[in-house]
Amino acid sequence: MDLPADLTERAASLDAEYADAYRPELFTLPDGVTYLDGNSLGALPRAVPAALADVAERQWGDRLIRSWNEFDWWGAPERVGDRIGRLIGAAPGQVVVTDSTSVNLFKTFVAAARMRPGRTVVLTDPDSFPTDLYVLDGAARLAGLTVERVPPDQAVARLGEVGEDVALAAYSSVDYRTGEMWDLPAITRAAHDVGALASWDLCHSAGVLDVRLDDDGADLAVGCGYKYLNGGPGAPAFVYVRREHQDAFESPITGWHGHARPFAMEGAFDPAGGITRARVGTGPMLSILALEAALSAYDGLLVADLRARSLSLTRFFVECLDAMGHALAVVTPREDQRRGSQVAVRHPEAYAVVQALMARGIVGDFREPDLVRLGFAPLYVSHDDAARAAVAFVDVVDGEEYARDEFRARATVT
Amino acid sequence: MDLPADLTERAASLDAEYADAYRPELFTLPDGVTYLDGNSLGALPRAVPAALADVAERQWGDRLIRSWNEFDWWGAPERVGDRIGRLIGAAPGQVVVTDSTSVNLFKTFVAAARMRPGRTVVLTDPDSFPTDLYVLDGAARLAGLTVERVPPDQAVARLGEVGEDVALAAYSSVDYRTGEMWDLPAITRAAHDVGALASWDLCHSAGVLDVRLDDDGADLAVGCGYKYLNGGPGAPAFVYVRREHQDAFESPITGWHGHARPFAMEGAFDPAGGITRARVGTGPMLSILALEAALSAYDGLLVADLRARSLSLTRFFVECLDAMGHALAVVTPREDQRRGSQVAVRHPEAYAVVQALMARGIVGDFREPDLVRLGFAPLYVSHDDAARAAVAFVDVVDGEEYARDEFRARATVT
Repeated sequence: MDLPADLTERAASLDAEYADAYRPELFTLPDGVTYLDGNSLGALPRAVPAALADVAERQWGDRLIRSWNEFDWWGAPERVGDRIGRLIGAAPGQVVVTDSTSVNLFKTFVAAARMRPGRTVVLTDPDSFPTDLYVLDGAARLAGLTVERVPPDQAVARLGEVGEDVALAAYSSVDYRTGEMWDLPAITRAAHDVGALASWDLCHSAGVLDVRLDDDGADLAVGCGYKYLNGGPGAPAFVYVRREHQDAFESPITGWHGHARPFAMEGAFDPAGGITRARVGTGPMLSILALEAALSAYDGLLVADLRARSLSLTRFFVECLDAMGHALAVVTPREDQRRGSQVAVRHPEAYAVVQALMARGIVGDFREPDLVRLGFAPLYVSHDDAARAAVAFVDVVDGEEYARDEFRARATVT
Repeated sequence: MDLPADLTERAASLDAEYADAYRPELFTLPDGVTYLDGNSLGALPRAVPAALADVAERQWGDRLIRSWNEFDWWGAPERVGDRIGRLIGAAPGQVVVTDSTSVNLFKTFVAAARMRPGRTVVLTDPDSFPTDLYVLDGAARLAGLTVERVPPDQAVARLGEVGEDVALAAYSSVDYRTGEMWDLPAITRAAHDVGALASWDLCHSAGVLDVRLDDDGADLAVGCGYKYLNGGPGAPAFVYVRREHQDAFESPITGWHGHARPFAMEGAFDPAGGITRARVGTGPMLSILALEAALSAYDGLLVADLRARSLSLTRFFVECLDAMGHALAVVTPREDQRRGSQVAVRHPEAYAVVQALMARGIVGDFREPDLVRLGFAPLYVSHDDAARAAVAFVDVVDGEEYARDEFRARATVT
């Protein structure tokens, strides 16, 4: 299938229109690959290998233990946190890079329960990414709370019904499967109306959405470093604690990096001031500093420009599918204000479709039970990439390529 | 001060005698530096920079998301865990690399409390590394336990007194300041006699002591990857759960990597079998794989040979101090069976002494309030290094070099 000529032309003009947030020269991508899986693992920024070599050979190898001072390894979690903060609407001093998303969810959930003693209910999305559900269930068990699973579009109403028994509303700003963006500012206002807190999961938002934690009143937030932030596989995660809550934030995991005087080696825990109290143990410095180097790809960019380019890419991809006259089951909302930075298509042979696309050099991913997920990272995906992915998608489905045996084998990890 | 000639000769013969565990050619150390701080940050193994470049450029950069399968990133925590297991007397399937030591302490403490319901007391060392104390206090608060601080040499007696109310005895095998090694097998037997569990902190033991978790009945253990294991700054930590306890091990932090079917995206947590249930979120792969490369320095070595060389180094260092006729306050036990892999010297100007030694190329560290700590990593420290460190130490103290202003300035991190 060929794309109508006018769409091919539009791809070039849209790339020009949204050029501000397009920096493919800062990334290494293999030849012949259209990478639409930056919502799972971001591409390799060119700055990272040199940074890793420097950290290993000069800082660690040559200066050894002295690098904790000389290169301020000790301050890296807050320093890198502030760089992420700029991308999610958080003024400095409220974000720290530490642990994994799951561990940070645990810390924020228990801390939130402690900030609202006597309240017994937590609301969350039944379709959350599973670790959010698992960790919340585990934290609720320890804190004596009941978790009520309420879809995001019913959360405002439910907050009004349950009222002052709600301690926390914990939601993701983008559904990891469908790519639907939820109205977390509205949920947050409704939570505040009944005196509850709101916690945001930004895993699929940081670096692509125009997130405004400070302006929109978010109380707590977490997110990972390895998707649109391009920090590398399993890159350390981050946690945001709104400044006004920091004095009341009591982490359940009271490690020495969160102590006010870590090197005084005192016998009792005394939490550090500010966001530092959300730290726990010694962080994986190679991975933290790789993330720092990766974030340089965002230097000087406006979040609004990233969001505009991301929306244009996903909008154009769907437009291309439409133009080829296919009734593919796009489950991602078409309205800009309800869409994250990915497009998901439902197909009964979704796993095999993903494999067939990969054989054509289009890398997306599969999510149980029947979704093809394609992520559009504005920094390194072009509108031409989107057009070629749409054509390949239609060809794979038209030609039933997914029915070939080599594409239908199941993998345990996708 | 010169070292007596016979000691200079003995340094060479001891290096030959304990040559099996000496592999300096596998490490990069800066010229002119005698590095005696491997108990804080291990030296850079030569294998690491190339491994990092490969992971970043080929695995991440070129194969992208597919590397989770193709290079088995998913299985790295258990794979690297087994490599550490060999060094701490743990048969395969009982150690996993995950999170930081502090987070792992939290998981094991809460899980231990759940394995001994109804019991209300935890015993631990008042002189533990602070994070152990802080995390235990925090976990006890959540689990409704009381922490009783009992020195290791009184723990056996106290276990007998408190009896069946004890849930857990949590001890480090080596005192991080004095270098004293405790009899954890005896504490473990006494804990078992009253039906309690024993948890071992191996931060200062893994890679240098002849730890035998399986043989000595340890129930749980944790340790870090960045000291004698040389995994790099903040390298990921490990956790050991004895096989017979794995089915009963309930982590309080129920993340998706600990799920039996992580990619089925189910709504409820169902813990994986085996040690995998101690995993939480996605681990920092650059740091995990750097640790894996670092561990290759231990390939083919016997733990008994590492321990023998480590003991010889610390014994010889103290012998050199003695030979120079100085009454330095060595606080580390002289008996082999009571000594870890470091020597600590008490001095009222300990901080300045460390700085003056560093100016002479001898890198050790300072611990509040008055200890100079020198760690002897058998893989890359020679007996000649030990002799030169002893001479420098005596010269610094004899010449009161530590009294010079530039050595007395205080740093916030040491």
